[in-house]
Amino acid sequence: MPGSQSSVFDSELYSSLFTQPEMKSIWSDDNLLRCWLTFEATIAHVQTELGIIPPEAAAEISAACQTLKIDWPRLASETRSVGMAIKPLVDQIADAGSPLVKKYLHWGCTTQDLLDTALAMRMKQTLQLLRRQLVQLGETLKAMALEHRHTVMVARTNSVDASATTWGLHVSSYLSELTRHLQRLDRLYPAATTGLFGGAVGNLASVGSQGMAIRQQLMDALGLSCPVGMSNASQDHVVEVVQFFALVHGTLCRMANDVETQGRTSVAELREGEGGGGSSTMPHKTNPRASNMIQTLSRMGWNYAAGATSLLDQCDVRAASARVLNWTLVPESALALSASLERAVRLFTHLVVDKEKMRGNFAASKNFIMSESVTMVLAEKMGRGAAYDLMKALLKDADGSKDLLQCVLENQTVLDALTETEIVAACDPLSYLGCNDALIEETVTAFDDYIHVQTA
Amino acid sequence: MPGSQSSVFDSELYSSLFTQPEMKSIWSDDNLLRCWLTFEATIAHVQTELGIIPPEAAAEISAACQTLKIDWPRLASETRSVGMAIKPLVDQIADAGSPLVKKYLHWGCTTQDLLDTALAMRMKQTLQLLRRQLVQLGETLKAMALEHRHTVMVARTNSVDASATTWGLHVSSYLSELTRHLQRLDRLYPAATTGLFGGAVGNLASVGSQGMAIRQQLMDALGLSCPVGMSNASQDHVVEVVQFFALVHGTLCRMANDVETQGRTSVAELREGEGGGGSSTMPHKTNPRASNMIQTLSRMGWNYAAGATSLLDQCDVRAASARVLNWTLVPESALALSASLERAVRLFTHLVVDKEKMRGNFAASKNFIMSESVTMVLAEKMGRGAAYDLMKALLKDADGSKDLLQCVLENQTVLDALTETEIVAACDPLSYLGCNDALIEETVTAFDDYIHVQTA
Amino acid sequence: MPGSQSSVFDSELYSSLFTQPEMKSIWSDDNLLRCWLTFEATIAHVQTELGIIPPEAAAEISAACQTLKIDWPRLASETRSVGMAIKPLVDQIADAGSPLVKKYLHWGCTTQDLLDTALAMRMKQTLQLLRRQLVQLGETLKAMALEHRHTVMVARTNSVDASATTWGLHVSSYLSELTRHLQRLDRLYPAATTGLFGGAVGNLASVGSQGMAIRQQLMDALGLSCPVGMSNASQDHVVEVVQFFALVHGTLCRMANDVETQGRTSVAELREGEGGGGSSTMPHKTNPRASNMIQTLSRMGWNYAAGATSLLDQCDVRAASARVLNWTLVPESALALSASLERAVRLFTHLVVDKEKMRGNFAASKNFIMSESVTMVLAEKMGRGAAYDLMKALLKDADGSKDLLQCVLENQTVLDALTETEIVAACDPLSYLGCNDALIEETVTAFDDYIHVQTA
Amino acid sequence: MPGSQSSVFDSELYSSLFTQPEMKSIWSDDNLLRCWLTFEATIAHVQTELGIIPPEAAAEISAACQTLKIDWPRLASETRSVGMAIKPLVDQIADAGSPLVKKYLHWGCTTQDLLDTALAMRMKQTLQLLRRQLVQLGETLKAMALEHRHTVMVARTNSVDASATTWGLHVSSYLSELTRHLQRLDRLYPAATTGLFGGAVGNLASVGSQGMAIRQQLMDALGLSCPVGMSNASQDHVVEVVQFFALVHGTLCRMANDVETQGRTSVAELREGEGGGGSSTMPHKTNPRASNMIQTLSRMGWNYAAGATSLLDQCDVRAASARVLNWTLVPESALALSASLERAVRLFTHLVVDKEKMRGNFAASKNFIMSESVTMVLAEKMGRGAAYDLMKALLKDADGSKDLLQCVLENQTVLDALTETEIVAACDPLSYLGCNDALIEETVTAFDDYIHVQTA
Repeated sequence: MPGSQSSVFDSELYSSLFTQPEMKSIWSDDNLLRCWLTFEATIAHVQTELGIIPPEAAAEISAACQTLKIDWPRLASETRSVGMAIKPLVDQIADAGSPLVKKYLHWGCTTQDLLDTALAMRMKQTLQLLRRQLVQLGETLKAMALEHRHTVMVARTNSVDASATTWGLHVSSYLSELTRHLQRLDRLYPAATTGLFGGAVGNLASVGSQGMAIRQQLMDALGLSCPVGMSNASQDHVVEVVQFFALVHGTLCRMANDVETQGRTSVAELREGEGGGGSSTMPHKTNPRASNMIQTLSRMGWNYAAGATSLLDQCDVRAASARVLNWTLVPESALALSASLERAVRLFTHLVVDKEKMRGNFAASKNFIMSESVTMVLAEKMGRGAAYDLMKALLKDADGSKDLLQCVLENQTVLDALTETEIVAACDPLSYLGCNDALIEETVTAFDDYIHVQTA
Repeated sequence: MPGSQSSVFDSELYSSLFTQPEMKSIWSDDNLLRCWLTFEATIAHVQTELGIIPPEAAAEISAACQTLKIDWPRLASETRSVGMAIKPLVDQIADAGSPLVKKYLHWGCTTQDLLDTALAMRMKQTLQLLRRQLVQLGETLKAMALEHRHTVMVARTNSVDASATTWGLHVSSYLSELTRHLQRLDRLYPAATTGLFGGAVGNLASVGSQGMAIRQQLMDALGLSCPVGMSNASQDHVVEVVQFFALVHGTLCRMANDVETQGRTSVAELREGEGGGGSSTMPHKTNPRASNMIQTLSRMGWNYAAGATSLLDQCDVRAASARVLNWTLVPESALALSASLERAVRLFTHLVVDKEKMRGNFAASKNFIMSESVTMVLAEKMGRGAAYDLMKALLKDADGSKDLLQCVLENQTVLDALTETEIVAACDPLSYLGCNDALIEETVTAFDDYIHVQTA
Repeated sequence: MPGSQSSVFDSELYSSLFTQPEMKSIWSDDNLLRCWLTFEATIAHVQTELGIIPPEAAAEISAACQTLKIDWPRLASETRSVGMAIKPLVDQIADAGSPLVKKYLHWGCTTQDLLDTALAMRMKQTLQLLRRQLVQLGETLKAMALEHRHTVMVARTNSVDASATTWGLHVSSYLSELTRHLQRLDRLYPAATTGLFGGAVGNLASVGSQGMAIRQQLMDALGLSCPVGMSNASQDHVVEVVQFFALVHGTLCRMANDVETQGRTSVAELREGEGGGGSSTMPHKTNPRASNMIQTLSRMGWNYAAGATSLLDQCDVRAASARVLNWTLVPESALALSASLERAVRLFTHLVVDKEKMRGNFAASKNFIMSESVTMVLAEKMGRGAAYDLMKALLKDADGSKDLLQCVLENQTVLDALTETEIVAACDPLSYLGCNDALIEETVTAFDDYIHVQTA
Repeated sequence: MPGSQSSVFDSELYSSLFTQPEMKSIWSDDNLLRCWLTFEATIAHVQTELGIIPPEAAAEISAACQTLKIDWPRLASETRSVGMAIKPLVDQIADAGSPLVKKYLHWGCTTQDLLDTALAMRMKQTLQLLRRQLVQLGETLKAMALEHRHTVMVARTNSVDASATTWGLHVSSYLSELTRHLQRLDRLYPAATTGLFGGAVGNLASVGSQGMAIRQQLMDALGLSCPVGMSNASQDHVVEVVQFFALVHGTLCRMANDVETQGRTSVAELREGEGGGGSSTMPHKTNPRASNMIQTLSRMGWNYAAGATSLLDQCDVRAASARVLNWTLVPESALALSASLERAVRLFTHLVVDKEKMRGNFAASKNFIMSESVTMVLAEKMGRGAAYDLMKALLKDADGSKDLLQCVLENQTVLDALTETEIVAACDPLSYLGCNDALIEETVTAFDDYIHVQTA
């Protein structure tokens, strides 16, 4: 019913800003039930293979799971009363199934086995989707880094104009983080996609001596990692994922911060090109909606990571209170990251880079930010200490009416040491980019190498 | 469409565990739009009264707002492109309205004015609902504290049996926190229900000299507090609310912790009486679902408070990134608290208190937890130091085969100092409850007094 | 020993950046012990007055506490083994004292009574110091708001130039938050300075029927609030303080954000005037150290608030794990806030405001941010809709070579509606400040009124 | 000066509870300066090798760094004024050095290079220490898991007695997490120990074409990883470490939770054996100080992880505000984890495991928790459905006066299906441990294998 939703993820109004369609589908009620049904059909199949239940039972359970028509209101009402949705669903399958289904469905399973395994199944879908999004963003950044490898701009540190750099090098620094994020994702993937099958208290007592074999074959059939030892109270692999999401948000937020900052009216080096964002009262104004949205989503992502550690406050074989928390933390965090990655790709694909304004902004400091460059050229002639002192005195006397080149050309000591050509060159940002090209290349190569090796 | 939701607040399966119906309605898309429509109609009315727009305009705007049939898909799609939903809604009203509506609708308003004022309107509904829930829980606790004022039980500190207390006194300590929460709610209410009307940059420039008057009359008409000065970047009153919610969760979590702990099989003093919570594999077992759910909701509430401070990271006249965050933090935090309060009332209404088991659990320490009591009686005869040393030696020699009374009765020094009647009395928990009754009465009176004074 | 410290609060290098001297003294080990000694002396005095212990005992305990020479290494070593420092200290007093001291010291007290009461004592010192700092900052802001009430500058929303405002109005918006913070401090003060006296399990059993009287007189003598009911597990009043600190950090961080942003080289409207902050490699550069430090401290403060809710995860009569947390959270959060307030006063006292640059920055948008102003003047002649459409078309055709005034003066429709004088006036920021003066005055008056009423 | 410290890490009283001696030394001011001095000496050496500065300069710089006698008060005072401690230290070295030192010290370096590289150096020391502590704890847990592989105890889920398990299996579940933590540590180690050398804005402009070579050789000489590309604004590798610490705290907290819970007086299965923890007023009582301290430290660790993401809120080439935060977050988080690991080793080394009490606690549920076991044996004879229904009915009629064995032996249907021997066996916890041994062995082997492969 439109209008009754209350969370930004499901709201008619806001859902599109906070979710990505495929990810929303992964974390939907529908997909949750589908994962549980797959679990039930699969374990029946495995138990048939191991001679525990008759083959017809597996076939009929499979059929019952595939054809089940969910009675949503009944499911909702029973979940409310039981506190968990597994038993209500199993009852619906059993009610709709044959006597064999009734007899062998859910054989030796416990609620946690389904909850945690279905979490692993959706985590697998989530990480695969995010990996594609990360690679896509990486390709976007790589292209921009290469295109703008010689687009000179002011380098700023602690928010103050500092020296010269290139937009390409700056963009490559995002790519460098992204490459690390891909490595992290690949490393945590096996643990994050570990299912659970342990019975009531995790020791597989209800399925007897074939417990280890069932567990292994079930996980193989579901394409999940098999747990090592007893792990009912362990949530470290879940928390690790939400923490990882927070790291990715860090890169996205930094990109958004830079676009916003370099898009301020007085700077005007970057402009969002998506369209939209207009002010209703001020027609001259366009708001950086994509950057702002990415910043918002990153705060959400960081906060999910903050809350995720509560999952670790476990006790006994398992503590429900700390586990139920993942019903909200994991979906919301996956939705927020996926939405942000999608928005970041769009933002950087349409980003308008004003090269002339970038070049022009050296004027804001009257080119004084090139003083380190001049100092280093002077140092080759007169030693670093003397050069530094000379420049410092020179800058101190400047009254703001002249730019760096003028000030330097009027100083006799400098003129004695350097030719005018040398001075002009030293004041040119392009002459003071250091290892700009090597650093960009190193970064792009690391990304390319990793992607090619891993995505085979 | 059942099955497509992805957040626990809107999920068909889980919504009932994470929300309270009235609160869900307050934070629904529907109510959001209703608040915006009310704002537009109200400001038109105020501007008519001040002679700024013609009376017919106000009447027609009012009618247009009341009869508007929302085109949800269009609203969603335009919100996605604009990034905010205000302009899309205003366009729908204007499209459906007369020329006067088109001309005078949204006169001198800006998006933030509507966003923040509608937040204040829903905050008002939220706080009023929560206040009722707090009072209801308070009444439940008060009744239980009085009923069990003399229900003796083991007092535990740092999880170890320590001395004697009563269940009534313990329950009264929840009530004491609750009374403070009611005071806090009443104190933050005026700021939390402050609307906003300031125009594009907060100085009311677009409405000229009548700005202050419009602002005041608008807030009066909406039943909101009027802001003092320019407050576009201020979110302290919003953060304060979410922080306050976290404090209330503290009390609820403590109650849940105690029920869970005192419900452990070896303790068995308390039992949830709601029904439900059965295990599918272990028929003897009932899980403390209400306690666990309240514990989960409290972690969520604490995490919302943790994230809320990001709202304060403002800049300039306003920064959208830090503000959009409240679209998710405020609704979710309100839903979680309301759901938890409702569950807590149910939990404590149905709570089964096993007085005999409470009395029986003194045996777990062989009544040794009454040793401080015996020491204090002895101290009156032989001085505190000597009494303490005597008891310490006596307890140290105990091999665990006898309980405190037996040990004491076998000690000649004690027998020389006290009669057997005195000894037996000193070992009786009822004799060592200190100011139990006065403390309970003090707490109940404070609650009653506050409720009666404030709710007039 | 210089060099052995490991936290920024006690580091030889960094302490001055993260602490304020008086606050550091309040949270020193020394003051902690002093508070405990005061507690012991005071309760002896109270118990004498109530006839519980002989008057000589109180006198000798008082003397012993005043003359005690702490054996630090022994105290440290015993605390390590016991896990709490109270008993080790009481032992040192007793060892140094007369037989009467040995007999009556710590009579009927428990560790928590001292821990929580000493916390309340230091909380009182803390809140009093912070209140003075808040008022001092308020006076600084008030002076600046009034001085710059007509210092016109660009108003920015969502980081984009939006319209005209004044620096004075902007500064007044900080003052408005500060006034609310003072009100909050005064409201939470009584609860935050509540001591504890309840004996082993909170029911005053060890001191018998005079328990309520001892508690009341002890708190009166210490200048603390007396608790209502049994409150051993309650930490809501402590968490509330740390949450409040986070709100104050919000205002300070916003001030720092604005100084940093308006100090960017391309904007250059504000400049930190403290001195220091020079770059070692780039002589032209001064870093906004004060702003950055305040931003850092605010993140710390927000994080303390995030962690503080863990204090609420209580169980039974008390749970040590959640209580010990306040040994680190409360001192660090008090130090960080006090350091930040001191720095903020210094920052705003020395802040260099460049009025000409503020005026000049309207050029960054070619004065287009005054378009709303022109629209509103036109609206009086031709209606708001027509005026808005006219301006929008006009701005859309602008190619960036001319500023707003030029564009407007070339448009015949505008010239038909307005005189050149009217047009020039509408393009003047000073003409479009709305209720600037009234809003500033309202804010300053609210601050003044509150300070005068409360500080009597 | 004893008594002047204000943080628990440096407090005379509390430091021993919150720090581990080696870790405290790693994060001391002393070691910080030592790392900076090492950096300066090493880069001089590298620059000599590359022919950039004369060999004598490197030798004299090395000597100056080694013999420097720090003037602490001057360092503190200059740091306060500059806001960073690097330049003040460099000045002290230069002042004490020869003309060559003055000339070539700090050649081409910038403050961030030293800050971040010294962080990496101490991170390396930290991770190496923590790895040793993790292995030590792992060995302790392994020994206990093997010793108690057949120590039967009640398995509890959601705080309610559920079925049978062993203490050995439960302990092995901690070891399983620990093995994963070791893997995580080894994986994040290379990135976490990455130094920085990039000059003023990260592109190595100040050292010209040899930049890449200097960087590589410097990192090699310091035993650090060399960065890839430009990474001045990247803090993901630092945040990742603090997040990892939080995961380890999860395991420690769970261990502490279990010790505390199983040590409750009514359960009494585990007892801390460290000594200490006595109550001053209640002589019979020993508090679980180690568990409580570990729980406290874990909340601190989780909160550091929550705050660490703020480090990612970067802008431009670097933003100081988000970076200075690591001065407090990283040391405190390292200290807290190290202290907790040390305490956990001590706790589990001295832990008293009461096997008889563990066995005896099956009585709390009248052995009803063995009902699943009986059901499964019955199921072999009559099918799972029929067996389950039979047991459910039987348990429902039980009035609490008889235990499971009695109830079952009185039921004719059961007697028809099973012999008395079979029934008695089914009620024996030892008969229902499932894959207990295989799970323990799998876990221990995984730990052993990983340790042996990695620690070569």
